Amino acid sequence: MSWQFKLASSARASPRWLTRPNGVLLRPASAGRLPSAPAMTQTSVSVTAKRTLADYHSSKCLNLDNINPSVRAAKYAVRGELAVKAENYRQQLADGDQSLPFDSVIFANIGNPQQLDQKPITFFRQVLSLVENPLLLENPEALKTSFGYHQDVIERAQTLLANVQSVGAYSHSQGAPGIRNSVAKFIEERDGFSANPQDLFLTGGASSGVSTLLNVICNGPKAGVLVPIPQYPLYTATLSLLNAQCVPYLLNEQEAWGTDVNVILQSIKDAKAAGIEVRAVVVINPGNPTGASLSADDIKKVIDIAAEESLVVMADEVYQTNVFAGEFVSFKKRLRQLQQEQPGKYDDVELVSLHSISKGMVGECGHRGGYFELVGFDPLVQEQIYKLVSIGLCPPVVAQCLLETMVNPPRPGQPSYELYQKEYNGIRDGLYQRAHALYDAFQRMEGVECQEPQGAMYLFPTIKLPAKAIEAAQAEKRAADEFYCLRLLDATGVCVVPGSGFGQKENTLHFRTTFLAPGTEWVERIVKFHAEFMEKYR
Amino acid sequence: MSWQFKLASSARASPRWLTRPNGVLLRPASAGRLPSAPAMTQTSVSVTAKRTLADYHSSKCLNLDNINPSVRAAKYAVRGELAVKAENYRQQLADGDQSLPFDSVIFANIGNPQQLDQKPITFFRQVLSLVENPLLLENPEALKTSFGYHQDVIERAQTLLANVQSVGAYSHSQGAPGIRNSVAKFIEERDGFSANPQDLFLTGGASSGVSTLLNVICNGPKAGVLVPIPQYPLYTATLSLLNAQCVPYLLNEQEAWGTDVNVILQSIKDAKAAGIEVRAVVVINPGNPTGASLSADDIKKVIDIAAEESLVVMADEVYQTNVFAGEFVSFKKRLRQLQQEQPGKYDDVELVSLHSISKGMVGECGHRGGYFELVGFDPLVQEQIYKLVSIGLCPPVVAQCLLETMVNPPRPGQPSYELYQKEYNGIRDGLYQRAHALYDAFQRMEGVECQEPQGAMYLFPTIKLPAKAIEAAQAEKRAADEFYCLRLLDATGVCVVPGSGFGQKENTLHFRTTFLAPGTEWVERIVKFHAEFMEKYR
Repeated sequence: MSWQFKLASSARASPRWLTRPNGVLLRPASAGRLPSAPAMTQTSVSVTAKRTLADYHSSKCLNLDNINPSVRAAKYAVRGELAVKAENYRQQLADGDQSLPFDSVIFANIGNPQQLDQKPITFFRQVLSLVENPLLLENPEALKTSFGYHQDVIERAQTLLANVQSVGAYSHSQGAPGIRNSVAKFIEERDGFSANPQDLFLTGGASSGVSTLLNVICNGPKAGVLVPIPQYPLYTATLSLLNAQCVPYLLNEQEAWGTDVNVILQSIKDAKAAGIEVRAVVVINPGNPTGASLSADDIKKVIDIAAEESLVVMADEVYQTNVFAGEFVSFKKRLRQLQQEQPGKYDDVELVSLHSISKGMVGECGHRGGYFELVGFDPLVQEQIYKLVSIGLCPPVVAQCLLETMVNPPRPGQPSYELYQKEYNGIRDGLYQRAHALYDAFQRMEGVECQEPQGAMYLFPTIKLPAKAIEAAQAEKRAADEFYCLRLLDATGVCVVPGSGFGQKENTLHFRTTFLAPGTEWVERIVKFHAEFMEKYR
Repeated sequence: MSWQFKLASSARASPRWLTRPNGVLLRPASAGRLPSAPAMTQTSVSVTAKRTLADYHSSKCLNLDNINPSVRAAKYAVRGELAVKAENYRQQLADGDQSLPFDSVIFANIGNPQQLDQKPITFFRQVLSLVENPLLLENPEALKTSFGYHQDVIERAQTLLANVQSVGAYSHSQGAPGIRNSVAKFIEERDGFSANPQDLFLTGGASSGVSTLLNVICNGPKAGVLVPIPQYPLYTATLSLLNAQCVPYLLNEQEAWGTDVNVILQSIKDAKAAGIEVRAVVVINPGNPTGASLSADDIKKVIDIAAEESLVVMADEVYQTNVFAGEFVSFKKRLRQLQQEQPGKYDDVELVSLHSISKGMVGECGHRGGYFELVGFDPLVQEQIYKLVSIGLCPPVVAQCLLETMVNPPRPGQPSYELYQKEYNGIRDGLYQRAHALYDAFQRMEGVECQEPQGAMYLFPTIKLPAKAIEAAQAEKRAADEFYCLRLLDATGVCVVPGSGFGQKENTLHFRTTFLAPGTEWVERIVKFHAEFMEKYR
């Protein structure tokens, strides 16, 4: 089953980007000319304004047919056509356009908490304001009396500045040593096993970490990486860029989107038969887009496969605090337990665990920060990883400071603790409530089935669409779920991502929605649209 | 001449990374085990602690021989062995070690202004403190009376927040539209020609921009990119990672490190003869490591070649405000002038110009920000570039805000102008004075020749070493300039980068030093060391 499986999104051999980066639809009349921005004063007319697309192809060095084919092949639905169209609608509304059938755009396509309702945590941002402008520290009394800064905020900023010297200076390429010490302590407290700051690499978000690691792991066009389906499309996109092979393994929707050992083993077998050397297995836990949370036993089974097949485990654990049911178990902790329980058997397992400041109750994705921890890597390989990250110099230093506050938040008894705890719990409870409101709405929708919310920031319901809707999609040369999501956006302003952007089992349709947007009014928009859609195509 | 030319650094087929990422020298006794960090409490002993390097090679998935060969082949001297050793010395001194023959380490190896003396510009950091903690804006009076914030600081922060919503939210993948508008206005004011915000891509520093662009341009192992020699090694490293070809062209040291059209043409000819398709020409102006500043006529000559040979021009203009003599001319301005003067001839030229917040009088490299502007690109190619950057989501949003303040600083008459101007000029004058102090010192050193400082943050003197020194280097299997720089570091704590890290004409030796470190005491350390070195090996 698994190897013959094709990502639905690859069914259209050459996906058309119908809109420009700026969101303006490509029309023949404007071909060859990029529109000017509304806010810009045109001081001269572009020299190339009167040229056509055909001219470009004949005379430019670069055209669509001769650029890096790996870049062209890469797909990334989260910011694709739908997102661009949604941004376009938002701009129309902002410009006062009243012709649209909705009065706001809901960006439920991307885990971008602070674009929606989520407020940043006060302690974090107070600290950052001080590391950005250390001159504020010269008047601590005014900070306290006029702005309510507590002493622990001031001390934290001083400590961070001592570590990084200035947030405007390059740090060590792996991240400032003192901040890596804090991350190591966090991991130790979380897992009960030691962590070594030398094995930590701070990153500009998990995405850049994934890119770094896959760059090292993939050694040619026959290198394969096991990727769960559905998946966050960063993985397939990065493998495309590296001209390496995605070896998909289907998650089991009936078992709450869990991993199925036999499916993974079959994928490995099929890949080997196709001449592919499988080098790594990606696990996203809690899952994106599924929200699934793996049990300790599920994790052991993946580690067993890695040990037996000599695979690097890439554990994408960026949603580790977004867990509604049970407790998060890290791959690192489970691996260390297994190494204690069965000395020898697991010694060679190579594990990399990724974390981020973008998700959880922190939601600071615009700052671009995170880290990965290497476990059991050959030191000579680790040096090559160091060299690779050093070419990019260092991750953003402000984001490193923010990471430090995330892994080392105010503790009970410290003056900033109470507010921190209140804000943190408020965000956590809000996410839970919204997830369930959305889940309840899906229960009311014909042909829609959804797993109970488990974690992450997403729900990923199955939708069963009438045959007429599927035909209408085919007439537009679109996947049926993409067709559905486009109609949803056009009718309601709610932007979600079709399942085909993440991969899904053949002959199934899904969409991914975040549960970050405030209120329930937008949920009702979906319910109403869905009923009308089903009626129209029945 | 040019094509046979080999980078001196590639003479050693397999460069040895003698030190670990953490700066600890690899010794057989510690092989297979990464040392624990001093600041860490070890709560358990690493499971793999007693294993040897040989064990790793036999049983791990990843080893030095089977990782991505392109990663292994990449070289990046700026943060290589010397930098790691310097960081090690710094730590030794910080730990109270008094055995070293110097009492401070001078990091003259990297353009990292705020690691050394340079203070951030107050206006920038005041604005950033407010966008990081918008709650501060609720008490503008206290900001003014207790901290000296002016009204324009407050208004700028409000404008930026209106543009980005929150610095913790993802922005548009090309960067926030409002900030791109400001960058476009800056380019228009600089050049007198229009700029379109849709053609601007904000980046996490110029390095990530270069990586994006080369990723698109390089379409296979036969794709070649003209790179000046000496060059900033980001270019050769990125081409290595992409398994594409560096086509070197030597700069003319005798002509103030200018470009020589005939040399470039010969390089193209040689590359074509070797079956390479040359697709782009990189120009670093002002130069790194040379500091050279190109005339309008030199720029025209490069554009002429690009027009005739259908090459993309990659103009790395990150040092555009670090110009001591004459006036900076941008490639964009020169191209637009030529397009006006000779309609038709230059219409198809594809130009990308890169800029950064890391250099100039801003020096905010730790924030990781910058932009590139595309000129004359096929819109369909531009869409692919958008897709590629969207996989990385967005550049750090705080850095986008900082970029906005850089391109739109306080103007005469605004309350923050006076201090801004004073700080800006102070940094500019300081750089000029230090450059000349260093230049004067080089005049006093036997066998050292240096071009008069023109710009950027570097001097790149030629050194002529005695035969005995070259023999001693060979005995250590090192390039002679690397040997010299290592001895310099060991003796003085001054860390510079050997010319072989940038490439240099065969049978010449250089080193690159920044002129950022304060004072002149460290310059005298170099003078004294040099005299003793020459004496020893005479």
